[in-house]
Amino acid sequence: MRSKTLWVLPLVGLLSACSSLQSSQAPAGFPDAPSADEMNRVSPAFKHYTDDVVLEDLWHRPGLAPRERSIITLSTLITQRQDVELPYHFNKALDNGVTPEELSEIITQLAFYTGWGNSTNAVAILSDVFDARGIDNSDLPAEPANPLPIDMESEQAREQLVDENFGDVSPGVVQYTTDALFRDLWLRPGLAPRDRSLVTVSALVASGQPDQVTFHLNRAMDNGLTQEEAQETLTQLAFYAGWPRVFSAMPVFRSVFESRGLIDADG
Amino acid sequence: MRSKTLWVLPLVGLLSACSSLQSSQAPAGFPDAPSADEMNRVSPAFKHYTDDVVLEDLWHRPGLAPRERSIITLSTLITQRQDVELPYHFNKALDNGVTPEELSEIITQLAFYTGWGNSTNAVAILSDVFDARGIDNSDLPAEPANPLPIDMESEQAREQLVDENFGDVSPGVVQYTTDALFRDLWLRPGLAPRDRSLVTVSALVASGQPDQVTFHLNRAMDNGLTQEEAQETLTQLAFYAGWPRVFSAMPVFRSVFESRGLIDADG
Amino acid sequence: MRSKTLWVLPLVGLLSACSSLQSSQAPAGFPDAPSADEMNRVSPAFKHYTDDVVLEDLWHRPGLAPRERSIITLSTLITQRQDVELPYHFNKALDNGVTPEELSEIITQLAFYTGWGNSTNAVAILSDVFDARGIDNSDLPAEPANPLPIDMESEQAREQLVDENFGDVSPGVVQYTTDALFRDLWLRPGLAPRDRSLVTVSALVASGQPDQVTFHLNRAMDNGLTQEEAQETLTQLAFYAGWPRVFSAMPVFRSVFESRGLIDADG
Repeated sequence: MRSKTLWVLPLVGLLSACSSLQSSQAPAGFPDAPSADEMNRVSPAFKHYTDDVVLEDLWHRPGLAPRERSIITLSTLITQRQDVELPYHFNKALDNGVTPEELSEIITQLAFYTGWGNSTNAVAILSDVFDARGIDNSDLPAEPANPLPIDMESEQAREQLVDENFGDVSPGVVQYTTDALFRDLWLRPGLAPRDRSLVTVSALVASGQPDQVTFHLNRAMDNGLTQEEAQETLTQLAFYAGWPRVFSAMPVFRSVFESRGLIDADG
Repeated sequence: MRSKTLWVLPLVGLLSACSSLQSSQAPAGFPDAPSADEMNRVSPAFKHYTDDVVLEDLWHRPGLAPRERSIITLSTLITQRQDVELPYHFNKALDNGVTPEELSEIITQLAFYTGWGNSTNAVAILSDVFDARGIDNSDLPAEPANPLPIDMESEQAREQLVDENFGDVSPGVVQYTTDALFRDLWLRPGLAPRDRSLVTVSALVASGQPDQVTFHLNRAMDNGLTQEEAQETLTQLAFYAGWPRVFSAMPVFRSVFESRGLIDADG
Repeated sequence: MRSKTLWVLPLVGLLSACSSLQSSQAPAGFPDAPSADEMNRVSPAFKHYTDDVVLEDLWHRPGLAPRERSIITLSTLITQRQDVELPYHFNKALDNGVTPEELSEIITQLAFYTGWGNSTNAVAILSDVFDARGIDNSDLPAEPANPLPIDMESEQAREQLVDENFGDVSPGVVQYTTDALFRDLWLRPGLAPRDRSLVTVSALVASGQPDQVTFHLNRAMDNGLTQEEAQETLTQLAFYAGWPRVFSAMPVFRSVFESRGLIDADG
C-alpha cells in the first residue's frame, strides 16, 4: 500500500523525476498518479505505450502546438473525470503556455458543457497545483468589464431557431442558453473564441455527443482553427477520449470539412 | 495542499459557513469540495456562476419544488460519479424534504439504471452524511411487506414486446427485466412512482440515453409529473448534466408533449 | 466518519468476512467500498439486491464462466471509473483465474478503447492489490518477442476502408489505428484474441457506443465466443453497465446473431 506520510514531501521533486505522470502529490481525497515502479509492477506494456507512444511521440507531432494539445487533453480529462492525470496535465498546461486565467475560463466553460460537478472537482485539484506554484487568480474579475463584441445578426438567428424548436419544450433552458451562455459566457475575454470552441469540441467528442460538433467545429474554424489543427485534434482525442469516441466523431468532422470545401465530398 | 488533520474537525461548521459547497468533510478516499477561498483562487468566474446563477437563481425558480430539484440533481451526480458535490447535495436533499428512505430507494433505482458501481459509491458517501446527522435506515425492510399494486395488462404488454424483440438475444436480460425490475424494484413503496420515474428520466438524460426517455417520461407524467415540472426538469439538468445532454433530450421531450396533446405538433 | 488508521489493518480479514464488497482497504486517495454495516445503515434494499441478486444469483448463472464474468465486470468498472468496486473485483478476477499478465493486457486494451486516464487510474488501484498478494509483472516484456500471426488479407481490407473514409479527415488517427492498434496492440499474445474482443465489446456497451459493437462482436465470435456466452455477456453488463446501455446494445447483438444465421431474421 502506498504510504502518504509527511516525511515524503521533501522527496516529491526527486520522485517525480522517476515517473511518467507523477508531477506532484494529489490533494487529500484525490488519487496519486502511479509511480514508474507501480506502472512496471502492473503493466510494462501500458508503461511502454504511455512513455514511447503518447508522451514521446503523440505530444511532439507537428500540426498542433503543445499548448493546444494541453487544452484538448485537459478538456477531455475533466469531461471524463479522470482525476488521476489532472495534476500532471495542469502543470504541463502551465508549462506549455496556458495561462492561469485561461485555466479558469476552461473550467468555467466545461461546467456548462459537461455538467457542473466536473468543474467543481477540477477546481479542487487545480487549487493545489496553484498553491504549489504560488499562483492566485483571486484578483481576476468575476464578471468582465469589457466583454467581447457580439455578432447580433447570427446570435438573433440562433435564438430564433432555438426558440422555434424548444421554446415550449423548456422555456428555462431557452432563456439560460441566451442569457447565461451566448450573451455572457461566450463573450468573456479571458479565453480566445477559437480556444473556447476547441474546449467545447473536445468536450463534445469526449462525452459522446458528436451530433453537436457541427455547430461548434464550424465556430472554431470561423475563429481561426485550421484544418490541420482540427485533424490533429482528433489524433490527440483518440488517445485521451478513446478510439471509439473519435471514430464516432470522424464522419461529423468530414462533413464539416466538406461543407467548407476543404475536402472532396466524394473523398 | 489542503490539510486534513483531526484538529480541523471542530472548525468544520465554521468553515462551511464560508463556502458554497462544503457542507462537511468527505469520507476518507473521497474528495472534499473546494472551499470559497479555493474557488476564488482558481476561478472567480466559476464561483460567480455557482453562487449567483446556480445556487441563488436556478434553485429558486418556480415550476419545480426544491425537493424535486434535489432528486434530479442527486440522480445526475450519482450517474456521472461527481462525488465532490455529493455530500453537499445529500445534505441539501434531506433539508429539502427528501426522506432517508427515499434516498435509499433512489440509490437502489440508480444501481439498475446506471450501473451497480455508481450506487456502491453513493452508499459510501451517504453513510458518512447519515452518521453525522444520526440517521440510520437499518430497520427498513430489505423487501417490502406490501408492494404497490401492478397494472397486469400493461405489464404483460411490455413483457410480450420485450420478449418478441430480445427473447433470443439475451434470455437472461429479459428474465431479470421482468423479475427484478418491473415485478419487484418498480413495486417498492418507499419512493412514489412519479419520483422513481423522475430519477430514471434524470439518469437517462445524464448518461446520454435520450431514446429511452420516451417510455419513462410518459410513465412519469401518467403518475402525476406536470408539463411545467418536466420543462423545469430540463432546466435543472442543463446545469448538472451539461447543455449538450439536454439539447439531445429536448426533441424527445417535445415528441412526448406532442403525443399527449400538450403542445402543437407544428410548434 | 469512517476511520482509516493503522491499527485496523490486522482486522481486515475479519472485516471483509462481514462485508459484501470490502476485500481490502483502497490505496490513499481512492475510496473504500462500504462495509456491510454501512450498506445496511444507508440501504437494506440495495444490500439485498447486491447480496442476493448480483453476488449470489447473477455470478453463478450457467452459460458464462466466472472468469469471463470477471473480465466483463472489470472492463465495465474501468470504463465507467467506478473505483470503489475495483479492489474487490481485481481480487475476485485473480481468484477466478484471470492471470496477472491478462490483467496487464486488459488495462492496456482499455487505454486505447476508453481513454488513457481510465487505465492510469486502474494501474494505481491494481498496484496495491498486487502488492498485497505479492504479485509483480515487472519482468514481463513491454513489447512481445513473438506477436500473434496477422491475417493480412482482412487487415488490408480494413486499412483500405478506413483510409477511404477518414484518410483526409485525420491522417494521424488513421496512421495510429494501423501502427499502434491493429499491427501492434491486437497482436500481443498476453491475452487471447477472444478475450481481447470481449474486453472491447464490454467497453463499447459500457461507454454507450453500440454502433461499433458489430465489428468487435463478430471478431469475438470468429475467435470462439459462443452465442450463449454473448447472451450472458449482456446479462452481466445489465447489472454493471446499467439496463439502458444494454437495451441500446441488444438490437446490435440481434443483427449480428441474424447475420451469422444463429437466430431468425423475423425473430
